[in-house]
Amino acid sequence: MMMNAEKIGAAMFAQDRASQALGMELLAIAPGSATLAMTVREDMANGFGICHGGLIATLADSAFAFACNARNELTVAAGFTVDFIAPARPGDRLVAVAAEMAQAGRSGVYDVSVHNQRDELIALFRGNSHRMKDKQVV
Amino acid sequence: MMMNAEKIGAAMFAQDRASQALGMELLAIAPGSATLAMTVREDMANGFGICHGGLIATLADSAFAFACNARNELTVAAGFTVDFIAPARPGDRLVAVAAEMAQAGRSGVYDVSVHNQRDELIALFRGNSHRMKDKQVV
Amino acid sequence: MMMNAEKIGAAMFAQDRASQALGMELLAIAPGSATLAMTVREDMANGFGICHGGLIATLADSAFAFACNARNELTVAAGFTVDFIAPARPGDRLVAVAAEMAQAGRSGVYDVSVHNQRDELIALFRGNSHRMKDKQVV
Amino acid sequence: MMMNAEKIGAAMFAQDRASQALGMELLAIAPGSATLAMTVREDMANGFGICHGGLIATLADSAFAFACNARNELTVAAGFTVDFIAPARPGDRLVAVAAEMAQAGRSGVYDVSVHNQRDELIALFRGNSHRMKDKQVV
Repeated sequence: MMMNAEKIGAAMFAQDRASQALGMELLAIAPGSATLAMTVREDMANGFGICHGGLIATLADSAFAFACNARNELTVAAGFTVDFIAPARPGDRLVAVAAEMAQAGRSGVYDVSVHNQRDELIALFRGNSHRMKDKQVV
Repeated sequence: MMMNAEKIGAAMFAQDRASQALGMELLAIAPGSATLAMTVREDMANGFGICHGGLIATLADSAFAFACNARNELTVAAGFTVDFIAPARPGDRLVAVAAEMAQAGRSGVYDVSVHNQRDELIALFRGNSHRMKDKQVV
Repeated sequence: MMMNAEKIGAAMFAQDRASQALGMELLAIAPGSATLAMTVREDMANGFGICHGGLIATLADSAFAFACNARNELTVAAGFTVDFIAPARPGDRLVAVAAEMAQAGRSGVYDVSVHNQRDELIALFRGNSHRMKDKQVV
Repeated sequence: MMMNAEKIGAAMFAQDRASQALGMELLAIAPGSATLAMTVREDMANGFGICHGGLIATLADSAFAFACNARNELTVAAGFTVDFIAPARPGDRLVAVAAEMAQAGRSGVYDVSVHNQRDELIALFRGNSHRMKDKQVV
């Protein structure tokens, strides 16, 4: 019996202490796509008072991970690229939307965009995934 | 009078709540280079029990930020690329070493490697920096 | 008087010996977007008999260049990322479609997809642009 | 009997019509590394009179391909990232040096630097390789 994406997402999230510790929420998940949100906390700001770019990338990376595991085939990130478009600040609510762009063999490419609560583009992320052979997520 | 890199690094780190909250330590800093360490905590693990890739990238991104601001010219990350080579696990101590590879006008390229306590390569990171005009870090 | 994108594209293409030498055609251009085609020749194949990945990237890079100069503001590539999804072979007609994804100050992000004549995805390309100050293309 | 890297390189180069057509020379090859040269021709210049960035990337991509196939295990490029540091002009002789940075399973990371005849850095390239299972180059 195939598990649906929501159940896989819920099970993954329940185990994902990093995404939980950063206050992320899983808003939506479907095969090849996922949407996560995170509110920038004071302890996420860098020395310039803006959200640490690595943590914006971490939100996008989580969205990427949920999207590429939503078919219950265990998939890991091989790497990613991120471009920072505008700063995020404590209090901002960021939403990351991940979508599959391509699959070739066991490799995939996923794009993630991160916007703030005013729908301003904060970052563009592109992830490279690697699907493990014959392993399930749940 | 020119401030030395150690003083700039210490002042930056004192303001950098994100790097502090993740337990990072600034081990070394010089013009164009920096070394930071982070021990992977249980709450940095993802649903697969390994360190969230975004947090490995965040450590590298911090090392990049300290390296490119060490001349006291305010510089931000325009983006970065990261390749994950091997997983890191809770308890691992990661060390990120950042070094300037190129400068052209106000744009720079920095490479960061992340190794664990057994000197195994965990990730390779390449950051693109953008120096602000006539602004100082401290 | 503002020049329209088609005129700028035609003027750029007339000077662009590299794109001409590779047999590229400029199919469409508008502010922030451009479409170019190239037929893979025998002398574009690498040692494995498939189109050299660098030349697929070169087609995408040309599409990127036309898209980001179409407003007649001189813009250069700072760098790009490319993912190869499927091989292209001599005789294949490749079409690259470039579109602006973001602008922040004088920096931009453009996405280019490359498909073959069977509409199969060959490559995904993301370019980082840098607009020069007060310089025109034509 | 193991073939040595020079013989593999010579055999690959003899079949590589794209690298030949661009006037590249294979200067050195060893397991995990390769050095190639290319003189920028007039027909490699773009509309701004400088070498098309895609062709600089193509030189680096060739160096990457020779480096990652030098052990006679068939390996293809999964993708790459390139940063353009300084322009190259017709008449410039570019030298690309590729070196393996990491291997994990059948995936590899290779760095390539491109310098001109005055030893100025022109571009930094990072390639992601994928080794095919049980296939030889020659």
